[in-house]
Amino acid sequence: MTTTLVTNIATLVTNDPAAGEGPLGLVQDAAVVMDGDTVAWAGPAAHAPAADTAYDAAGRAVVPGFVDSHSHLVFAGDRTAEFNARMSGRAYSAGGIRTTVAATRAATDAELEANLTRYLDEALRQGTTTFETKSGYGLTVEDEARALRIAARHTDEVTYLGAHVVSPDYADDPAAYVALVTGEMLDACAPYARWVDVFCEKGAFDGDQARAVLTAGKAKGLTPRVHANQLSYGPGVRLAVELDAASADHCTHLTPDDVDALASGNTVATLLPGAEFSTRAEWPDARRLLDAGVTVALSTDCNPGSSFTSSMAFCIALAVRDMGMTPDEALWSATAGGAAALRRTDIGRIAPGARADLALLDAPSHVHLAYRPGVPLVSAVWRRGVQVVS
Amino acid sequence: MTTTLVTNIATLVTNDPAAGEGPLGLVQDAAVVMDGDTVAWAGPAAHAPAADTAYDAAGRAVVPGFVDSHSHLVFAGDRTAEFNARMSGRAYSAGGIRTTVAATRAATDAELEANLTRYLDEALRQGTTTFETKSGYGLTVEDEARALRIAARHTDEVTYLGAHVVSPDYADDPAAYVALVTGEMLDACAPYARWVDVFCEKGAFDGDQARAVLTAGKAKGLTPRVHANQLSYGPGVRLAVELDAASADHCTHLTPDDVDALASGNTVATLLPGAEFSTRAEWPDARRLLDAGVTVALSTDCNPGSSFTSSMAFCIALAVRDMGMTPDEALWSATAGGAAALRRTDIGRIAPGARADLALLDAPSHVHLAYRPGVPLVSAVWRRGVQVVS
Ligand SMILES: [Zn+2]
Ligand SMILES: [Zn+2]
Repeated sequence: MTTTLVTNIATLVTNDPAAGEGPLGLVQDAAVVMDGDTVAWAGPAAHAPAADTAYDAAGRAVVPGFVDSHSHLVFAGDRTAEFNARMSGRAYSAGGIRTTVAATRAATDAELEANLTRYLDEALRQGTTTFETKSGYGLTVEDEARALRIAARHTDEVTYLGAHVVSPDYADDPAAYVALVTGEMLDACAPYARWVDVFCEKGAFDGDQARAVLTAGKAKGLTPRVHANQLSYGPGVRLAVELDAASADHCTHLTPDDVDALASGNTVATLLPGAEFSTRAEWPDARRLLDAGVTVALSTDCNPGSSFTSSMAFCIALAVRDMGMTPDEALWSATAGGAAALRRTDIGRIAPGARADLALLDAPSHVHLAYRPGVPLVSAVWRRGVQVVS
Repeated sequence: MTTTLVTNIATLVTNDPAAGEGPLGLVQDAAVVMDGDTVAWAGPAAHAPAADTAYDAAGRAVVPGFVDSHSHLVFAGDRTAEFNARMSGRAYSAGGIRTTVAATRAATDAELEANLTRYLDEALRQGTTTFETKSGYGLTVEDEARALRIAARHTDEVTYLGAHVVSPDYADDPAAYVALVTGEMLDACAPYARWVDVFCEKGAFDGDQARAVLTAGKAKGLTPRVHANQLSYGPGVRLAVELDAASADHCTHLTPDDVDALASGNTVATLLPGAEFSTRAEWPDARRLLDAGVTVALSTDCNPGSSFTSSMAFCIALAVRDMGMTPDEALWSATAGGAAALRRTDIGRIAPGARADLALLDAPSHVHLAYRPGVPLVSAVWRRGVQVVS
């Protein structure tokens, strides 16, 4: 294997408290050595071991590649007109998710995969080196399975979300749709997925239905994650903790009991500020969760309906401005927090043995991700030790 | 001159109501012909005249290059620690503008120019083809004049802002500082500037002082623009209209009389949402201004203290989310509105005779600038007919 030294790093975020200062394990005047696809060494540049090749970071900051643990990228079409009407205060007979379901069903496999890779490339250029993505715009056995089959070609973090909404084909018989999701559809989808997810919300699936979906998924070897408490208070968060879900996602409307459950359990709270931004909704209170000792992740929720951003940096800036996170906390949540929400220890940090996923910022410090909102600061990306953006 | 055809444009924003639909003069399936540095033709692709070379926009959107009519880019240093402390709720003995003044005075001409061109390049990559910039971090005769001399090498839109704050050297005698700003400093600066500006605000300059600064500038041939009503109610906006300033900038705290003055006068209201974003301040109410018939511009206010974004797209997304603008209105304000704030008719539109400043978006519609917040959508830029970003 070839070793590569990245040196002259003004600020290195390792997320390894043993390696540097604070929870981010910050090292100033730092260097990283990659051996093939793995981090071999990280620390002060003055002590860096020799390597085969060298890259001069020129006094800029290096952070772990972002871990986007919640996206919906297997879809076709967009919803520009719906967005435009919503933001312009005009009436619009919105089909909502159904619009995307119809377009997704009508698309060919090649079209879906081209769309997926387009957004993955876009995210990669912005520093995202790991992403999770879901089904949920097919809502038939065949369309859900094909979404996951396509997604699985591009990531290990594939989530079965047949229970996104009740399929329009079952509008009069939601129980039959839950039976399909927990039966034949699950059988068809489980081979491609690591996770099972449900949108537990008024108008989607209630607590009992969500429990049925997640329990059936667990029985098939999938680990739960839950769309919980986004639009209203409800049972989603407590159910997630009870079933030892990896993550409860959104967490916008939380009772004290919900916060206590998250603090006592093993479930990460994944906050998705892009959704609140693009729907003009109330912000989740990250400060409250952090102060209660909850592990918090940040993710894009990238989807064409409610949050069409692929920018983790944008989510960091929103979390700092509007959700009570410090710039350090927001960066941690967008990297190590995302890794925790995916129950991964090999990503989200720059430490010996971790996957060599690095983002070089055109800035001297990671704080600039919040300090310079909207500015594309990621100027180079290594994924598995290979420079994929320059 | 060589002519260039840009064709296969899904959505073309001309800002020429005669050329297309609505105030944006939208044309679907469009083309643009550039002749040297000038737009020669814009309209439906099917009717486009022949040209020497062709560029395939591949079904994407083209908008006029952004006009950023308010920035502070002649500075040295940054204020990361101050930002970090503010957003983290930590006490910080902030020097504020003084911190930047000290760093700017200490910098060499070459350092200041390298910093300026770095941010101009960054803005250009994000679609900004015209920018205004100001002095205001020198606050001595020599340092203000040198800032403007350096700025004038890079733009025609140079603003003398000796009256940014009272120089710390005159803390005990503000009247003497106003005398300097309206006397010797003005004499040294006027040759490099088109505009005179003043920060009319509690803690900076009151209405009488602001009037003295602007009137002195006018007598030297400079046209006023005013930092007005940002942090509190005050006389700035009405003074701007009274003195026929090109623009009143910020306009966050407005009385009904202020709105009436703007509606009846010839002064553009330039809104700077980056500042409200990065200081967690109340948003300006663009809807109120638009409904009153005021011409509104959007700009970045890019500066290292209160708004360190260079992204006009980010400002558009904020204006749509939080200031009551539609996506169409926000785009108009970021292009034609900025041109109006600079009293320019040759920029901010794509119409025969206008400067050939175009931004190609990696999206089928300009609405995506708000729909896809934080995503760097600008994929090609032409300035004066030359492709400068690809
Ligand atoms: Zn989601
Ligand atoms: Zn300003």
